[in-house]
Amino acid sequence: MSVNLPPLPELHPIDGIRLGTVAAGIRYENRPDLVVIECAEGARAAGVFTQNAFRAAPVVIAQAHLDLAMPRLLVINTGNANAGTGDEGLRDALRTCERAAELAGVQTLEVLPFSTGVIGEPLPVERIEAGLPRALAALDAEGWAEAARGILTTDTAPKGASRVLDLPEGEVRITGICKGAGMIRPDMATMLAFIATDAGLDKTVLESLVKEAADASFNRITVDGDTSTNDACLLLATGRGVALSPDSGGWEAFRSALIEVFRTLAQAIVRDGEGATRFVTVQVEEAADPAEALAVAYTIAHSPLVKTALYAGDPNWGRILAAVGRAGLADFDITRVRIFLDDVRIVERGGRAADYAEEAGQAVMSKPELTIRVLLGRGETCERIWTTDLSHEYVTINAEYRT
Amino acid sequence: MSVNLPPLPELHPIDGIRLGTVAAGIRYENRPDLVVIECAEGARAAGVFTQNAFRAAPVVIAQAHLDLAMPRLLVINTGNANAGTGDEGLRDALRTCERAAELAGVQTLEVLPFSTGVIGEPLPVERIEAGLPRALAALDAEGWAEAARGILTTDTAPKGASRVLDLPEGEVRITGICKGAGMIRPDMATMLAFIATDAGLDKTVLESLVKEAADASFNRITVDGDTSTNDACLLLATGRGVALSPDSGGWEAFRSALIEVFRTLAQAIVRDGEGATRFVTVQVEEAADPAEALAVAYTIAHSPLVKTALYAGDPNWGRILAAVGRAGLADFDITRVRIFLDDVRIVERGGRAADYAEEAGQAVMSKPELTIRVLLGRGETCERIWTTDLSHEYVTINAEYRT
Repeated sequence: MSVNLPPLPELHPIDGIRLGTVAAGIRYENRPDLVVIECAEGARAAGVFTQNAFRAAPVVIAQAHLDLAMPRLLVINTGNANAGTGDEGLRDALRTCERAAELAGVQTLEVLPFSTGVIGEPLPVERIEAGLPRALAALDAEGWAEAARGILTTDTAPKGASRVLDLPEGEVRITGICKGAGMIRPDMATMLAFIATDAGLDKTVLESLVKEAADASFNRITVDGDTSTNDACLLLATGRGVALSPDSGGWEAFRSALIEVFRTLAQAIVRDGEGATRFVTVQVEEAADPAEALAVAYTIAHSPLVKTALYAGDPNWGRILAAVGRAGLADFDITRVRIFLDDVRIVERGGRAADYAEEAGQAVMSKPELTIRVLLGRGETCERIWTTDLSHEYVTINAEYRT
Repeated sequence: MSVNLPPLPELHPIDGIRLGTVAAGIRYENRPDLVVIECAEGARAAGVFTQNAFRAAPVVIAQAHLDLAMPRLLVINTGNANAGTGDEGLRDALRTCERAAELAGVQTLEVLPFSTGVIGEPLPVERIEAGLPRALAALDAEGWAEAARGILTTDTAPKGASRVLDLPEGEVRITGICKGAGMIRPDMATMLAFIATDAGLDKTVLESLVKEAADASFNRITVDGDTSTNDACLLLATGRGVALSPDSGGWEAFRSALIEVFRTLAQAIVRDGEGATRFVTVQVEEAADPAEALAVAYTIAHSPLVKTALYAGDPNWGRILAAVGRAGLADFDITRVRIFLDDVRIVERGGRAADYAEEAGQAVMSKPELTIRVLLGRGETCERIWTTDLSHEYVTINAEYRT
């Protein structure tokens, strides 16, 4: 089940990036589950990682390596998260890096490991090691689509986005892939995202850019409020194309295209959310600051009662208003709140809007995509997040799948 | 569906309290939906109410009246919450009080209104008014069990608790009833609770007692994390029996019996939680303070992934550990955490416990009642809360029932 998830678009190669995908039998037979992304020398990289205090071994190693060196290889496996595996897990992640480094002739510090899948089982390192030579042999600049399939777990379809920009400085390309369907929420979720550009970017610029873009995308989505131990989003800039900086004439066009790629990928994760039958934008306006706008937005997006009403297509404004009421805002006058479903005003002055007709609300709620707009009457800040409903399918998936 | 919900016990009458229950046709025909509780002159009362900023009209009126006068009558209707009804709702709640006061010969300020049911529809005041004379005529000291049935909404069974204590000062009785099944969480939920004792208690003592008892019971339960607009818990002390104060020889016995009654009622709500198939105690030990103990406990109890694993009977310690990890504790060393399912140690040193055998965890998870124990290794505080799993039935109930 997914909601208007677009088919994988053409993913333009990025000069300096090659990808290799193989089936290494990590958890299932004959399923692509090992991806290597090679990055040419001289590239820059920056990433954001899970905020969960329970970080998986590959996250610990990838962050440490990224602090010390520029990555040349990313090694991504599905089927096993190498999380909750203690010191043994760290050793396994390092062994993967060592072996990949050896085979590719780079330093161990230049390899970043990423894992996703079952928590708490030992990483089958020997299968990864056995698959690595084939994955390296398969490296191909045209390998994006195959890699997009190779990193999936409970996803129903591959996810990617790609742009070719004509800037005053010349052509610039951005291509990204990601995975994730459950355990999704801000501060990264069970999601992996790899985005590359051929632009040349300063490391400081790249670091602030990945943070800004993640905050506008992956940190604004939630399926079930659960964050994972393995989330990672990596932005690579190969520098094979034109150099860009915030002073460049094409900077704003590049920056907004990059955010758009991030956002398309993040929304694809929500569209493919576990059991999702609706794609819902929660937009909170007139907040005093971003923190309270997000508090209200997430309280709505995480409310099981709102989510089941969305599943039922029930314009249950009482549940939405009750969620707003418990978001913990200080000195909060609920009678100033107005709530809209798309353009239909459903709540004003602490109750049902005077001109609201149930059929109008019903019509919006029957759509696969809709916006819940909440106006707080407290300030001028607006925040938007994206979420799904809570369906029987969600319960089925998570009562059966062992993460 | 409910988990080991005991049948309604004998509810001992409380001298000075009479209850009358009738079917007033508020939302359904021939279903008890209007309850009047009469309190003899000279009684004392104290209450705790929803912390939701979106407070229903009856909560606003009940709190205001309770501040100004001692209640003589409680008027409780189901079928309609009179919430999200704006000024009209306040007028309707007041009209109910006026009419009840007129009929019973008391002051309007001495009447407290309580409503539970559908949000956002006008209160059918005329039906309540029409039912009031019959409810008053039905007043009976033996009316507790009928009242316990009269206040239900989505509950599958009535809930009550009663104790007769032999204190050095003489016999003291405590009897209480409550309702609630969904939209349950701390700071009160869609729940109403009415507890009475014949003891004579000072108002200040009563007020601190109701707060302490609610914090140990109704404010430690959660079904879905949603709080309601209408929650109220009222403790009445008629003073017809022996006078008690914190200096009395029987004080501790009384205090702990009262908390036990509150807790039995609160746990009955969880046992009858919407779609509940398991009754789960989440106990967090070795926390630095109560706030962080509760943060961890509620993050576990609200995690859809933990809740669906509980539904599946899956000892998925990775999901529990991931929930602990995202509870937002500062300077948190996840490797100090130990997690037990009942007495089975499942997590230590950041991973699966060395001596843990899946069958042992499986055996605990297959029980209808179990405890998730988390030891944080940060201090000496312990907090316990009670919750349920997340089942298909929960989704069905809330996708179909219009609160």
